[in-house]
Amino acid sequence: MINEKAYKLGSQRSAIRELFEYGKTRMAAVGKENVYDFSLGNPSIPAPEAVKEAFLDIVANDAPLAVHGYTSAQGDEATRRAIAENLEKRTGRKISPQALYITCGAAAALTSCIGALTISSDTEFIAIAPFFPEYRCFAEIGGGKLKVVPADEENFQINFEALEQSINQNTQAIIINSPNNPSGTVYTEETIKKLAELLTKKSEEYQKPIFIISDEPYRELVYNGQAVPFVMNYYKNTLVCYSYSKSLSMPGERIGYVLVNEDMDDWKMVYDAVAGAARSFGYVCAPSLVQRVIARCADVMPDLTTYKENRDLLYDTLTSWGYFCAKPDGAFYLFVRAPEGDGAAFSERAKKKDILIVGGAGFGCPAFVRLSYCVDTDMIKRALPLFKELMEETK
Amino acid sequence: MINEKAYKLGSQRSAIRELFEYGKTRMAAVGKENVYDFSLGNPSIPAPEAVKEAFLDIVANDAPLAVHGYTSAQGDEATRRAIAENLEKRTGRKISPQALYITCGAAAALTSCIGALTISSDTEFIAIAPFFPEYRCFAEIGGGKLKVVPADEENFQINFEALEQSINQNTQAIIINSPNNPSGTVYTEETIKKLAELLTKKSEEYQKPIFIISDEPYRELVYNGQAVPFVMNYYKNTLVCYSYSKSLSMPGERIGYVLVNEDMDDWKMVYDAVAGAARSFGYVCAPSLVQRVIARCADVMPDLTTYKENRDLLYDTLTSWGYFCAKPDGAFYLFVRAPEGDGAAFSERAKKKDILIVGGAGFGCPAFVRLSYCVDTDMIKRALPLFKELMEETK
Repeated sequence: MINEKAYKLGSQRSAIRELFEYGKTRMAAVGKENVYDFSLGNPSIPAPEAVKEAFLDIVANDAPLAVHGYTSAQGDEATRRAIAENLEKRTGRKISPQALYITCGAAAALTSCIGALTISSDTEFIAIAPFFPEYRCFAEIGGGKLKVVPADEENFQINFEALEQSINQNTQAIIINSPNNPSGTVYTEETIKKLAELLTKKSEEYQKPIFIISDEPYRELVYNGQAVPFVMNYYKNTLVCYSYSKSLSMPGERIGYVLVNEDMDDWKMVYDAVAGAARSFGYVCAPSLVQRVIARCADVMPDLTTYKENRDLLYDTLTSWGYFCAKPDGAFYLFVRAPEGDGAAFSERAKKKDILIVGGAGFGCPAFVRLSYCVDTDMIKRALPLFKELMEETK
Repeated sequence: MINEKAYKLGSQRSAIRELFEYGKTRMAAVGKENVYDFSLGNPSIPAPEAVKEAFLDIVANDAPLAVHGYTSAQGDEATRRAIAENLEKRTGRKISPQALYITCGAAAALTSCIGALTISSDTEFIAIAPFFPEYRCFAEIGGGKLKVVPADEENFQINFEALEQSINQNTQAIIINSPNNPSGTVYTEETIKKLAELLTKKSEEYQKPIFIISDEPYRELVYNGQAVPFVMNYYKNTLVCYSYSKSLSMPGERIGYVLVNEDMDDWKMVYDAVAGAARSFGYVCAPSLVQRVIARCADVMPDLTTYKENRDLLYDTLTSWGYFCAKPDGAFYLFVRAPEGDGAAFSERAKKKDILIVGGAGFGCPAFVRLSYCVDTDMIKRALPLFKELMEETK
């Protein structure tokens, strides 16, 4: 009677959501201050003041038919121009507004790229563990498959040997995500260079381009001033998927983009296929008022003081007690190895102390747990003694 | 290298968009006032003042983390409650917030319903001509097919004989659209009753539900005070797809919903499948600020004075000169039979006089043209003498 896969996706909440909903029930039962919710990647710092001012000024003063009217499917031209100019300044390369396709957030950007690159049911996409669990259902959107390359669990760069073995004639793209959810790792320039070399070699071997889909919602969230290598500067067959959800703290507004590398052979054809996939999913245009806000705020950067403070507090304290995790340079997650080597068991033990942390199995690393530190710093402080207990219980 | 179907969809503009873009070029060449653009269904009356006030008040006074944060995938609860209450008042039936799934407009609502109901490549959806051309690519989203039932060209109700012949074991749903784009026709209660009877009979014959997907973006745009029959009151296996694009003049904001009839057997299962399809396309949630605006403006109705004036002026004048069209009771389109019996030829002749009207072939009625009258009344007045010439040329 109905599509079974859609039913399954709609009726089974993700493990993350499940935990979050459980947290709400517990808060009602034992008090908000006694539950330590590290489950969701929801920004905890409000949108910058410039964003608020832009919203108010546009609604108050611009013509409503223009503000709330359809934009072209690829997005308002002023918005694309503002983004292109910002990216040119920061990446040192030529970027045209014509290469940008504005989307309803990074998820829509990813499904549109994947839809564009899926040729048949043999088509394969590769994710590198740890990876964002929704990649799986996105990769299957056009009937293709997701392959997962096991994690480099020491420093969460790329296990190149395993990656090379995973690539075959049907590989259309590698999906990367740096800064990474859930590990917080930023791929080094060396990693990106090695990846570009490998894919160039494999593209030649199979006589077809193998693309990189670079999912970059955390691009602006890095803490040590280090540059996040701009993947297009290293590999021509790159599509960037971006979202303003995290950088401008507006995940609900659904605004982001696909950027197609103009150095790619037939880049316009790939761009058109992205547009066509978006059209077929019912994306008419990205929300118009928010597009205008981005046109004004493309240069606004987040204030990372709180996230950095949270990261340092959590990382320094947990590792001093013997917890292992690669130091996250970006995003707002800590990916910690469970002391007992079993993330699900550790998450259950933590739950008994009303600490909500997500087991790593869904991310492709079952020995780990993810802690989102986009939370109140005070909550971290109150939770820390409990993490000490959790470690001591295993000794 | 890429998905051919997506490339085709992305590289070939719709005939409507093509004409609109041509119009912009002509306006630059001969002056805006000398081009008569009836091509697009873009509201010409601004969003109601209440919408503007809601935007300003929410952004100025609500907490930004809540305003711009993720809502649950099915939509903010207050928004769903406000919509449910409005619908209950108007339809006289019980409608729960739990049966509403907030979407990025009607297009997303349609693709989510179709995705939920597509079982295999044999799955068939039926559209009734004249129909919105995008139905075709939406119907194919999960690999299914679109069948088109020829129009009842006298009054644009339903040709039931042709519809009955189109239904078979693989028919999952009939997509209806009343008030209709492009004909402006409102299906009568008699039509809806006959449709319900036919589908009940056929569902029994094939031992499976055949659904109605009722696409209702023009529900609030009716001109003679007549009620638009609420399809759920006549047929239980109904899914409503709605958009605030036309009623609140904000097509760019992408906000609408799916409403699943709770009287349906296993309605929750169908609802979950809609949610799952939306999730797989990358719809995380509908834009959050606009959801809050709808929570406050669910009862706001459009002021139809201008559209009605335009309709009466165009309809009365054109028919007085011998043009044939069924009198449109709703939406903002006039669907006129080309005097030469060939919509494409008529559209071409009109174009030579800088009148832009869309040929009916894409809507499934090649003998007709569509005129969108969501335009300046003055432009209609200036164009009318040219329509007279166009008629006289054929005599």
